[in-house]
Amino acid sequence: MKLMQFQVDDLIKSALAEDINYIDVTTDYLVDENAVSTARYVAKDDGVLCGIDVAFRVFKLLDDNAKCEIYINDGAKVKKGDIIARFTAKTRALLKGERTALNLIQHMSGIVTATNKCVELIEGTNASVADTRKTLPGLRVIQKYAVTVGGGKNHRYNLSDCAMLKDTHIDAYGSMTKAVEKLRDGMGHTTKIEVEVGSLEELNEALSLGVEIIMLDNMSIEDMTKAVEITAGRAKLEASGNVTHERIRAIAETGVDIISLGALTHSVKAFDISMKIDK
Amino acid sequence: MKLMQFQVDDLIKSALAEDINYIDVTTDYLVDENAVSTARYVAKDDGVLCGIDVAFRVFKLLDDNAKCEIYINDGAKVKKGDIIARFTAKTRALLKGERTALNLIQHMSGIVTATNKCVELIEGTNASVADTRKTLPGLRVIQKYAVTVGGGKNHRYNLSDCAMLKDTHIDAYGSMTKAVEKLRDGMGHTTKIEVEVGSLEELNEALSLGVEIIMLDNMSIEDMTKAVEITAGRAKLEASGNVTHERIRAIAETGVDIISLGALTHSVKAFDISMKIDK
Amino acid sequence: MKLMQFQVDDLIKSALAEDINYIDVTTDYLVDENAVSTARYVAKDDGVLCGIDVAFRVFKLLDDNAKCEIYINDGAKVKKGDIIARFTAKTRALLKGERTALNLIQHMSGIVTATNKCVELIEGTNASVADTRKTLPGLRVIQKYAVTVGGGKNHRYNLSDCAMLKDTHIDAYGSMTKAVEKLRDGMGHTTKIEVEVGSLEELNEALSLGVEIIMLDNMSIEDMTKAVEITAGRAKLEASGNVTHERIRAIAETGVDIISLGALTHSVKAFDISMKIDK
Amino acid sequence: MKLMQFQVDDLIKSALAEDINYIDVTTDYLVDENAVSTARYVAKDDGVLCGIDVAFRVFKLLDDNAKCEIYINDGAKVKKGDIIARFTAKTRALLKGERTALNLIQHMSGIVTATNKCVELIEGTNASVADTRKTLPGLRVIQKYAVTVGGGKNHRYNLSDCAMLKDTHIDAYGSMTKAVEKLRDGMGHTTKIEVEVGSLEELNEALSLGVEIIMLDNMSIEDMTKAVEITAGRAKLEASGNVTHERIRAIAETGVDIISLGALTHSVKAFDISMKIDK
Amino acid sequence: MKLMQFQVDDLIKSALAEDINYIDVTTDYLVDENAVSTARYVAKDDGVLCGIDVAFRVFKLLDDNAKCEIYINDGAKVKKGDIIARFTAKTRALLKGERTALNLIQHMSGIVTATNKCVELIEGTNASVADTRKTLPGLRVIQKYAVTVGGGKNHRYNLSDCAMLKDTHIDAYGSMTKAVEKLRDGMGHTTKIEVEVGSLEELNEALSLGVEIIMLDNMSIEDMTKAVEITAGRAKLEASGNVTHERIRAIAETGVDIISLGALTHSVKAFDISMKIDK
Amino acid sequence: MKLMQFQVDDLIKSALAEDINYIDVTTDYLVDENAVSTARYVAKDDGVLCGIDVAFRVFKLLDDNAKCEIYINDGAKVKKGDIIARFTAKTRALLKGERTALNLIQHMSGIVTATNKCVELIEGTNASVADTRKTLPGLRVIQKYAVTVGGGKNHRYNLSDCAMLKDTHIDAYGSMTKAVEKLRDGMGHTTKIEVEVGSLEELNEALSLGVEIIMLDNMSIEDMTKAVEITAGRAKLEASGNVTHERIRAIAETGVDIISLGALTHSVKAFDISMKIDK
Repeated sequence: MKLMQFQVDDLIKSALAEDINYIDVTTDYLVDENAVSTARYVAKDDGVLCGIDVAFRVFKLLDDNAKCEIYINDGAKVKKGDIIARFTAKTRALLKGERTALNLIQHMSGIVTATNKCVELIEGTNASVADTRKTLPGLRVIQKYAVTVGGGKNHRYNLSDCAMLKDTHIDAYGSMTKAVEKLRDGMGHTTKIEVEVGSLEELNEALSLGVEIIMLDNMSIEDMTKAVEITAGRAKLEASGNVTHERIRAIAETGVDIISLGALTHSVKAFDISMKIDK
Repeated sequence: MKLMQFQVDDLIKSALAEDINYIDVTTDYLVDENAVSTARYVAKDDGVLCGIDVAFRVFKLLDDNAKCEIYINDGAKVKKGDIIARFTAKTRALLKGERTALNLIQHMSGIVTATNKCVELIEGTNASVADTRKTLPGLRVIQKYAVTVGGGKNHRYNLSDCAMLKDTHIDAYGSMTKAVEKLRDGMGHTTKIEVEVGSLEELNEALSLGVEIIMLDNMSIEDMTKAVEITAGRAKLEASGNVTHERIRAIAETGVDIISLGALTHSVKAFDISMKIDK
Repeated sequence: MKLMQFQVDDLIKSALAEDINYIDVTTDYLVDENAVSTARYVAKDDGVLCGIDVAFRVFKLLDDNAKCEIYINDGAKVKKGDIIARFTAKTRALLKGERTALNLIQHMSGIVTATNKCVELIEGTNASVADTRKTLPGLRVIQKYAVTVGGGKNHRYNLSDCAMLKDTHIDAYGSMTKAVEKLRDGMGHTTKIEVEVGSLEELNEALSLGVEIIMLDNMSIEDMTKAVEITAGRAKLEASGNVTHERIRAIAETGVDIISLGALTHSVKAFDISMKIDK
Repeated sequence: MKLMQFQVDDLIKSALAEDINYIDVTTDYLVDENAVSTARYVAKDDGVLCGIDVAFRVFKLLDDNAKCEIYINDGAKVKKGDIIARFTAKTRALLKGERTALNLIQHMSGIVTATNKCVELIEGTNASVADTRKTLPGLRVIQKYAVTVGGGKNHRYNLSDCAMLKDTHIDAYGSMTKAVEKLRDGMGHTTKIEVEVGSLEELNEALSLGVEIIMLDNMSIEDMTKAVEITAGRAKLEASGNVTHERIRAIAETGVDIISLGALTHSVKAFDISMKIDK
Repeated sequence: MKLMQFQVDDLIKSALAEDINYIDVTTDYLVDENAVSTARYVAKDDGVLCGIDVAFRVFKLLDDNAKCEIYINDGAKVKKGDIIARFTAKTRALLKGERTALNLIQHMSGIVTATNKCVELIEGTNASVADTRKTLPGLRVIQKYAVTVGGGKNHRYNLSDCAMLKDTHIDAYGSMTKAVEKLRDGMGHTTKIEVEVGSLEELNEALSLGVEIIMLDNMSIEDMTKAVEITAGRAKLEASGNVTHERIRAIAETGVDIISLGALTHSVKAFDISMKIDK
Repeated sequence: MKLMQFQVDDLIKSALAEDINYIDVTTDYLVDENAVSTARYVAKDDGVLCGIDVAFRVFKLLDDNAKCEIYINDGAKVKKGDIIARFTAKTRALLKGERTALNLIQHMSGIVTATNKCVELIEGTNASVADTRKTLPGLRVIQKYAVTVGGGKNHRYNLSDCAMLKDTHIDAYGSMTKAVEKLRDGMGHTTKIEVEVGSLEELNEALSLGVEIIMLDNMSIEDMTKAVEITAGRAKLEASGNVTHERIRAIAETGVDIISLGALTHSVKAFDISMKIDK
């Protein structure tokens, strides 16, 4: 996994604290402290998996001796009914961590499954699918990671690492040209500039300024096609707005480089997985 | 709002830190430090609103002097195109907080809108819609709050505050009867017991034990109808599993008391709101 | 132990930081970094033990290789002079953790000893001893745990997990009846309602509303006896206020179900244990 | 107050989070969001007050507009029935913060009352009452503060700020003389050395080394009297162990400088205060 | 200031906690709680100022009513003896915050002064001075901010926001060409690639790959001059290693775009400022 | 090491989070997840080493199986070109932790090297070199530790553990005599008093009060010589202000006990160490 364990640990610990609070009143009174069980994860749908390491880490944090056998790894396709992994740990650890682990893996697998669907829809074109900053508070790191596992690309991680000029910034600074000059004068040399344009006129201005990325905001397929022609490789073109499953291939076929979708992270459908204790 | 401000503040601060990191490279270089603007929130869809206080708090944390006029309050319906509120603050604060505030209010309004839809679908029956512990890590407090704003009810908040007996617990302790006795012997008097049953036989055993709540797990409409008859008010009946928009009214009409849906919090569709700077 | 290790770890780490600050100036200059010793815990009084795992965890956090032999477990009685456990670890770890470990185990054992005393005083009656929310800031989790080890029961953990109607709430909402209806209408189905009553009239009103628990606030033995008769099992009765060692048996013999005592957690007498290094 | 507000704030916020969790189910459903009330604090016993600022801060954190009138300040004596202060705030804030505020002020006032009792018992002698490191995890700062409000003195705050040689240290380093020399060689010049002695021979060795403080560990009144004579002002003498209300004056009259008591902080009896809403 | 107040607040609070611990024993016993004073900051050297807002925030956090008059702003030059600002606050707040505020402003002004010196040394050339990731743990945000106030530019903030290929990466992946292709295939479109080269051959390979930035690692002035010629504007050139005051102008005059210096942040000489209480 | 691992861990984790943020875009895309390498630390200058355990801990936190061979320990001298240690761990862990580990060890070794230089300059005199509270926010614990490794002594750690009277305190309380009496009356018996004096008159007043430490603030060599004579061992004398390499031996030869230098911690020159991957 590309994530650092201690970052994931903090998220897991806060999720466990949120879910368990003081004790698991049912489990702590009914299940013997030393009982050990094996649980299996079963896919309840078809999709792509992500977060199995995170799920296992939940049980490990509740029982140092937890073990796991993973049958399906992050990024792999899974069919309804497939057994994904088996975890062996104290029964109490399995039951107390069950919901937290599932909440995490189902969310991550939901993102991967949705991203992968989009990636497949545009297969064979030159376009990539990218995420946005429309993430859920505190979950950006796992959400952005999941997008990459699904074959998508990460857009800027935060407001520091790429400049993105929108109308408001341009209006506030007088003109696109002045704004770009000001940014180049002040910001560091490792930072790219992206400019959001709503028309081909604005596109031309942006191109004349040599900015690295241009976002075509809510443009028609026709305008995007023209934009690609005009640009002729002088900047990366990003299509944004009104990206649906129906429309995404047409967008990709215009020749744009990136298609960004907020829904990948702001409207995640959990991927259904269940945990069963082996008898 | 029922939430304590300092709880919300911690969530907002961590979201801002995640989104801004060091600086907003675009805004900090282009927008005058002392410039003040007014921004409006516009609904991009029909739905129910939630989180306007939280959104305003984002701007307040970035600018002590931020002001807001709220036109549509938490829990109120909103139509596409409606202006929800206007915020006046330093332009930098508005732009730096824009995404964090929208990520929060769109998620909360998405929950409320979906909850409200379910509530309306079962209007006139005796059933209530309830959430589950299938929440996103770190967001349980705002997710559970949003469910109540949408007219739903909160199921147990965590593993401490209600006992819930599932197969595994019962197997681990020998029998449902023994398990319920053990729980009553150990746990506090403020805690209810809910038992998950998969058949009418199990229902009868649970009823004979006098438990407060019985979850009918993935039962057919017919079985639920019989369960209601058998129970005759001796326990609260909760329907769970396979609850769809198509099926929810039929479930409610069986006479069950509660219908719980994980999707209210684990598969949230963001409610679309945009922020525009007034010219 | 029913507590999650990482919750306990946070408490221990903050206690160690508070006690050691930068270095243990005495130990760090005088004791060889690699020296290893064995220390024993000796009871200085008669009582009941609690927190031995927590004490050991202190040493483990200071020395990964710390070992322990436990002779007397949580919940067991201990006599003055008994050796409770032996810890083998780096001498520096033993000395630097000594006070933190003792502060914890003495406090927890103090709670258990006091709880157990009350439990014994009412042995043979149907009443249980329960704690309250009168806990010390940051210590609720270990205090409530200790009460259960001593044979007591936990009252509600926090303001979310059980409704408790007091005069102020009733006055604020008009009448007990209206208040109970409002609560039932809004709150979740897993939450019980407790009503505090000061007279038999109020008791009758509460009973007519079918609330699950009724607190008899500072009632005389006579009134409690009458309350039990009137109630006839229709609700759990909790006696609260003026519960002394002298009076507790008489209270229990009235037939109430629960006797709650704030003093179990707000006025804890530390149970005396000393640590000695084996020669 | 000598404490920094933000330190107190962290303690209060964690106490509120512990006590409220998600919502106050009773108050949030029954009390109007905008209702304002005045509550008074009434002493239920005779004692000395401490923590009124901390209690008020609880309400302030829940309602920015909270106001208070304080009639009895930190360190002042209070009689049963006295009204200590009045707080005016949103009714919800008063009810949600009630327990947290009382838990803090009752604990702090309990410490002050107990400290003050000891101080009065030795009035007219040269001895001072001092606390120890036998504090409760996370509460050292408010506990040590309360001791000073009660007229006691603070012993070392942590293991960094004063060296304290016990048997184990001396054994580990060969001899008291060698240990003291080693410490002087290594530690900073702002740090004092205290040596624990169990006999008059050890006292003489400690005196010959010129250490600043000597702890007379569990000595008889006779030995302490002799120790004072022998010392003749060459070091501060601290009496420790077996300090009871019955014995404290006799100890003080031996002429020792400090009498330290762990019980001031490890076995606190809460001072009873109640909050009443004004009608 | 470009920094968010709550980020600065966390740093200040932890610094105050570190410096004050429990109480300021001198100030809290000697200075009246209500006394108010005015203190002035006086420059003890010539340089450039940074951090005055941060210093004031220290006092504000200790006294809500603290006021300040600023005579010399962030980024302005200051002469030995100049009065920089006056703070009026409770005397206790001024004394308790004195060291924390000075530690911060002296460190920040030290960075600005050193950065500005380098900027002046290369004035009139096309080169910019840039910082590195050689910062002190926990201080990156204020250190990077200070560099910009001094006229320097920020290099990448962290390992996420720009790819930087060093020997090890290239060796690990087979060749520079393969590595760059792999990166372009995987990473997001907002991220630039910088390649570290040690020879003109490597420079040519990097240029042929079209990477955005090339770091000339420890090259001679002659080689840098050739590198600029060869590059001819096809990439940004960054000079790194052995950058001294003596050599920096010669480096800049080779025509490189950026000169990065670890010393700006890893070897900061505090800029001397003293605080005096006005009589 | 005298530091507690978990304190160091928190510092390291926050430094890693600051440096890595989300992922190491270069390493995570180019280096195989399972590749293992060995890296060596090479000194780039002559000096004294400190922080090797801390550096190793960085890699350990990124890879549980990290191993190290240490050739040069904390406090030992090192020559340019010496190999200090070898670390074997996952290549990703080595590359992701490289900068954080070096930032820490270079800073700590810089402090030790500078401290050791001062200690050597006054070798053979009775004076000790001491640090001050002029430390960098969040780094006091490792900075103070490094000073002791370099042979220096720690001055007070914070404002709680030693009283230090300056002009302002004396003015605020009327006179030095009154202030010292007030402090002795209030503060604990483990706390020393240091008085800052600017003249021999003030020195005499301080001596007459029997304070433990007297700081000679910015005195001439002549005045310090006289101060030592006058004091004749009745108090520890600390020289402070204008302590340069040129002047430090002359100061030490006056016979003062301690020479304190803010520069040891506020103006640290990083000690240059490089990490190389073994081929």
